[in-house]
Amino acid sequence: MEPDGASEASVSLREVGEFGLITRVTAGRAQPGTTLLGPGDDSAVVAAPDGRVVACTDVLVEGVHFRLDWSSPEQVGRKAAAANLADVVAMGAVPTSLLVGLAAPATTPARELEQLADGLWAEASVVGAGVVGGDLTSGPALVLSVTALGSLQGREAVTRAGARPGDRVAVCGRLGWSAAGLAVLGRGFRSPAALVNAHRVPEPPYAAGPQAADAGATAMIDVSDGLLADLGHVARASGVAVRLRSAAFSVPERLVEIGSALGLDPMDWVLTGGEDHALVATFPPDTALPDGWAEIGVVEPPGDGGPAVSVDGRPHEGDAGWLHFAKF
Amino acid sequence: MEPDGASEASVSLREVGEFGLITRVTAGRAQPGTTLLGPGDDSAVVAAPDGRVVACTDVLVEGVHFRLDWSSPEQVGRKAAAANLADVVAMGAVPTSLLVGLAAPATTPARELEQLADGLWAEASVVGAGVVGGDLTSGPALVLSVTALGSLQGREAVTRAGARPGDRVAVCGRLGWSAAGLAVLGRGFRSPAALVNAHRVPEPPYAAGPQAADAGATAMIDVSDGLLADLGHVARASGVAVRLRSAAFSVPERLVEIGSALGLDPMDWVLTGGEDHALVATFPPDTALPDGWAEIGVVEPPGDGGPAVSVDGRPHEGDAGWLHFAKF
Repeated sequence: MEPDGASEASVSLREVGEFGLITRVTAGRAQPGTTLLGPGDDSAVVAAPDGRVVACTDVLVEGVHFRLDWSSPEQVGRKAAAANLADVVAMGAVPTSLLVGLAAPATTPARELEQLADGLWAEASVVGAGVVGGDLTSGPALVLSVTALGSLQGREAVTRAGARPGDRVAVCGRLGWSAAGLAVLGRGFRSPAALVNAHRVPEPPYAAGPQAADAGATAMIDVSDGLLADLGHVARASGVAVRLRSAAFSVPERLVEIGSALGLDPMDWVLTGGEDHALVATFPPDTALPDGWAEIGVVEPPGDGGPAVSVDGRPHEGDAGWLHFAKF
Repeated sequence: MEPDGASEASVSLREVGEFGLITRVTAGRAQPGTTLLGPGDDSAVVAAPDGRVVACTDVLVEGVHFRLDWSSPEQVGRKAAAANLADVVAMGAVPTSLLVGLAAPATTPARELEQLADGLWAEASVVGAGVVGGDLTSGPALVLSVTALGSLQGREAVTRAGARPGDRVAVCGRLGWSAAGLAVLGRGFRSPAALVNAHRVPEPPYAAGPQAADAGATAMIDVSDGLLADLGHVARASGVAVRLRSAAFSVPERLVEIGSALGLDPMDWVLTGGEDHALVATFPPDTALPDGWAEIGVVEPPGDGGPAVSVDGRPHEGDAGWLHFAKF
């Protein structure tokens, strides 16, 4: 028996409990073919056709990574999924599934958690993945830990460690949009919608990850902390210097406009803004870049200061990007 | 440069930050052969030799699932790992790896998180698995979301749905120990140590899961919520009635003694206590039970009331076990 809309909206997680929420979150969802056994058992079983599985975990905390007065539960679900799916494609893999660990106050409206699940499913569906399992429990705040699994489909994994001197550095996807949207929200505005929505729900270029791997990318990472910070991971892992040319970036008109309005340099958003989950990769010098990739610099041997990232020959001044406590 | 013990003990998560904690949690850990690419990249890569991966997630929240005045961080890590590893073996699979999503207050001593990681590693090592990745962020409380992956090694997954009338019901591992230990702690005592430690760190019979699968188990589940509650999941998923015989249980002397001291019936702990992560399975009637399994009942067609669990012909009175909000 389905309660009517009015009472439905007021039902809390505590009231729904185990008896209702499994069904609410999993019922009527179409699992992809890679889901060999979906939710409802001790574990799920997922296809890993080439005998390997790519796996990563990302945690989002209310008040730290998102605010429910700035983003809807559905947008939070999409964003949490996107952060993990981007980490899978950054290896050159195709995502197959998500698992979701969720802690929420017992007073959380069940409807909010359903919408959050809707968001997770919506983003997973973009790449043909499914939500195959999870755990939901009470806790002092909304904490969302998403694990994504993926298939390399026979490819070698593209790590952060393979960049070589002479490689071209290229990027695919948005840079600085999420940071600009956050700056707008932080000043109490709700527009421009394109920027605010970019902060609420990133649009990682999912297909570009496997495409870059097929094209011969030597190293790849998704831009979650900021371009300079994430290229710093590549530089250190590969033992190289990454030299970017600022003239290679075409700063979108929307960022220029809002930067001007707020008195900020939009190039800072491009170089240090995270959470758009663009992909940045290195390619051998004789490699044709796949469609959608733009060359922004070159890999060189490390200088006297060791592995580093520079812009127009200088280390970038200012904040190098958002630092998690740790992603390992 | 390693700080000395005194200053080390006072370093918080905020102070260590990203620069220190990745190294602290991952350095010097020996990965198993199934870890094809370990921590430090966008994703890990784990072997899935038969082309399938078993995956599950479990969330533990401080104050809900554990108390740091009752358990050490290392014990919490072991318990979180054990809960997930038991969900993998309950499918008939062998665990390969863990991923850990962790939210913790910025003031948390870094030492505590290292000890928690030690516990995760210690328990993973029991089954030959490794911690291959994770994410650590600040949050209002300690929330630990662990994902376990495993390999079926060519076996069919043993689900909750395969029990058939005539099957024997058997259990392997401890029942009621964790609940008795919790009762002791809840009354302010710290002994008997065997029971208190059983609550702090469960000892699931990991090897028994694949062994039961090889022996032909038709359904299996790990006892995380309580024997009756978890057999209820089997009964409903399989569409059968499960009939237990109380005389088939030999209640350990330690439970009898402490039950007597506290004025409680130890059989309640055995039937409804969770978190020991014993395995309960159904086997065809002509199957010899593997070593360590004890027969406790039989599977019958569902009665008029539908799928159900009964003890000595009667539905058990009282609490049927700990109910999560949802495990899906």
